[in-house]
Amino acid sequence: MNIEHSHTTMIRVRYADTDKMGIVYNGNYLTYFEIGRTELLRSLGMPYAVLEQQGIQLPVIEAHLEYKAPAEYDDLISVQATCRMERGILLHITYEITKHEKLLTIGHTIHPFMNIATGKPVRPPKSFLELWNGTINSLNNKEDIGA
Amino acid sequence: MNIEHSHTTMIRVRYADTDKMGIVYNGNYLTYFEIGRTELLRSLGMPYAVLEQQGIQLPVIEAHLEYKAPAEYDDLISVQATCRMERGILLHITYEITKHEKLLTIGHTIHPFMNIATGKPVRPPKSFLELWNGTINSLNNKEDIGA
Amino acid sequence: MNIEHSHTTMIRVRYADTDKMGIVYNGNYLTYFEIGRTELLRSLGMPYAVLEQQGIQLPVIEAHLEYKAPAEYDDLISVQATCRMERGILLHITYEITKHEKLLTIGHTIHPFMNIATGKPVRPPKSFLELWNGTINSLNNKEDIGA
Amino acid sequence: MNIEHSHTTMIRVRYADTDKMGIVYNGNYLTYFEIGRTELLRSLGMPYAVLEQQGIQLPVIEAHLEYKAPAEYDDLISVQATCRMERGILLHITYEITKHEKLLTIGHTIHPFMNIATGKPVRPPKSFLELWNGTINSLNNKEDIGA
Repeated sequence: MNIEHSHTTMIRVRYADTDKMGIVYNGNYLTYFEIGRTELLRSLGMPYAVLEQQGIQLPVIEAHLEYKAPAEYDDLISVQATCRMERGILLHITYEITKHEKLLTIGHTIHPFMNIATGKPVRPPKSFLELWNGTINSLNNKEDIGA
Repeated sequence: MNIEHSHTTMIRVRYADTDKMGIVYNGNYLTYFEIGRTELLRSLGMPYAVLEQQGIQLPVIEAHLEYKAPAEYDDLISVQATCRMERGILLHITYEITKHEKLLTIGHTIHPFMNIATGKPVRPPKSFLELWNGTINSLNNKEDIGA
Repeated sequence: MNIEHSHTTMIRVRYADTDKMGIVYNGNYLTYFEIGRTELLRSLGMPYAVLEQQGIQLPVIEAHLEYKAPAEYDDLISVQATCRMERGILLHITYEITKHEKLLTIGHTIHPFMNIATGKPVRPPKSFLELWNGTINSLNNKEDIGA
Repeated sequence: MNIEHSHTTMIRVRYADTDKMGIVYNGNYLTYFEIGRTELLRSLGMPYAVLEQQGIQLPVIEAHLEYKAPAEYDDLISVQATCRMERGILLHITYEITKHEKLLTIGHTIHPFMNIATGKPVRPPKSFLELWNGTINSLNNKEDIGA
């Protein structure tokens, strides 16, 4: 399976995000990555909050960032997140942050599916795979959630 | 009882704490207050992490800050936290942040004791009161902790 | 003059905003206040970034927060910011953060107008006052900006 | 020249650093890297604040992180930063974050020397190279600084 899902989100840069260089602090791009990832999952019909309610988390085990040009205060930037599955057990997400077509930052994060109760890696839940594969379009079945 | 406890902690200002004004972002002083509070509790023999293990949290219900002069990158600042009990159920903590005797920020926070399991306000745990009143000096009795 | 301006902005709570209590960290509400203030100024036709280009900043000299109920991860919260002028030289802004009509946090911040070059308090720039008083609707005159 | 400099710093994990997973938020490790880098430069006799006063900044152009085990609230963690020069113009810094010998996070950042006034990459300042090479031990000469 070479399914890939992609989604683009706009983010307004906050004053709190900047540092005394006058640009966004390097660590805050990982928060922008988080927002891109969150909205990508929501667009798949599986908000991360629902995933957690199902007892699953997606901790970050690797992150990589390349800074090409800085984002500045009040910039309206675009985060494109693209996700693929690796070995059926890891989400590999790449990010491209741009401002008016200008490339600012690229990077990726890698996430196992983790059972919150045990702290152990697990296979993706069935409902997630159905959404991923397009078998269903959203979680409209209450029994799918929770447990 | 008019018992008051006070403790002073030094903090090095991080680059991440600054914003594009070139000074510490206004919201980050609440993190400095947190550090002052944490070290004050530790100095009483009751680290906040232990309090949480006992099932108690101290959520903030009110915070107030007055900014007199800015802290800057790499400044070594001093946070003096002074704590008193109100009506036997609330911690009222005042803060004074200085740099080489120069006053930068003052403020306070107010905290009920909250039972984590129920989310309800409760009386301070007995072990906390004994430390507060100086009846004991530290939690050296394993039965005191946990449960 | 008893002119008051008000504006409401929606904010999605980020994972990065939460702490191990499972709710938004107390200091991050000052960032939510910043966003409410920023969008209020933008709605007046005077984005804060433009104000800074004009050589003016609005540092925070006082902040106050009362926490009524917590915001949680992925909540879509509403920040209403209401601004009035005090003694012709200070902006006094109150904030009301709600989630589906439920009140979460209230507070205020106070800001002088500061000349960036001198670091001294100044009167509001003429263009700001015209927007404030409704004499003009937006900064469409290039000469207004800069210098 | 294969000179390498290394320095270890202790950091106390703040409540503000954690997220609702109950552990340190992934983006905050870049702040821990910053602290490791800052103290490494200070140990060389060249505090980053002095470098900036000399008109030089070290922006991050690449960052990489591998998360092995989580840091938790109130943990006293150790950041070892090790720095080498690449092609005479880039600082390549690796980081190892541990808690009681247990490896939590590894990673690296890459930094050019940038002239603040022009925004262009430059060669390291002479005073920096002298400290790096051990020709001098600290900046005790006023003419070295500023200009």
